[in-house]
Amino acid sequence: MNLFENVPTHLPSELIEVLAEGESVRIERIVSTGHSTDPGEWYDQEQNEWVVVLKGETRLRFSDDKVISMQPGDHLLIPAHQRHRVDWTTPKEPTIWLAIFFEKVSGTFLEE
Amino acid sequence: MNLFENVPTHLPSELIEVLAEGESVRIERIVSTGHSTDPGEWYDQEQNEWVVVLKGETRLRFSDDKVISMQPGDHLLIPAHQRHRVDWTTPKEPTIWLAIFFEKVSGTFLEE
Repeated sequence: MNLFENVPTHLPSELIEVLAEGESVRIERIVSTGHSTDPGEWYDQEQNEWVVVLKGETRLRFSDDKVISMQPGDHLLIPAHQRHRVDWTTPKEPTIWLAIFFEKVSGTFLEE
Repeated sequence: MNLFENVPTHLPSELIEVLAEGESVRIERIVSTGHSTDPGEWYDQEQNEWVVVLKGETRLRFSDDKVISMQPGDHLLIPAHQRHRVDWTTPKEPTIWLAIFFEKVSGTFLEE
């Protein structure tokens, strides 16, 4: 029951574990070990996603070509159907994400 | 937009910030600096709460007198109306929590 334990260092693909789930929400831990989204592929999700990087490092790309670098503690709200992809995760250590998928968002996208 | 930045070291009461919110979900960052729940008081919430400690240290008590110590990375699902209180947070550094409140839980309470 600790996000920083049982972290594989080499994975054939990203490791996704559902930590808790309700009717309209899903909380996942995701571990990436240098993974990125396949070339030309984009995520286009039905649900909103709030995501935080807890360890490691990543770069996300959005369909308007905006690129966001994320370090531990950095968090972001990705509204439903905002097309995005993982351009890069560090190969130096596992990247641990926490992702919360949910419906009917309020709040502002990429507010600083 | 970083969970580990803008962390006050002294607070009159816990600092609660809503990071994202939907119709049936609310994501909060909570900062405690040695705070605990007032003596004799208990939380009895309408919503389920999934909580993780990201920094610092705490002890939660449940109404059956079970006590859970939480270190960074430890997470827990507190079902709606499961009475609980914060017995202690470390006075040595700020304790940073991430709490997700949501409805209609599935999953198991205190599963190891």
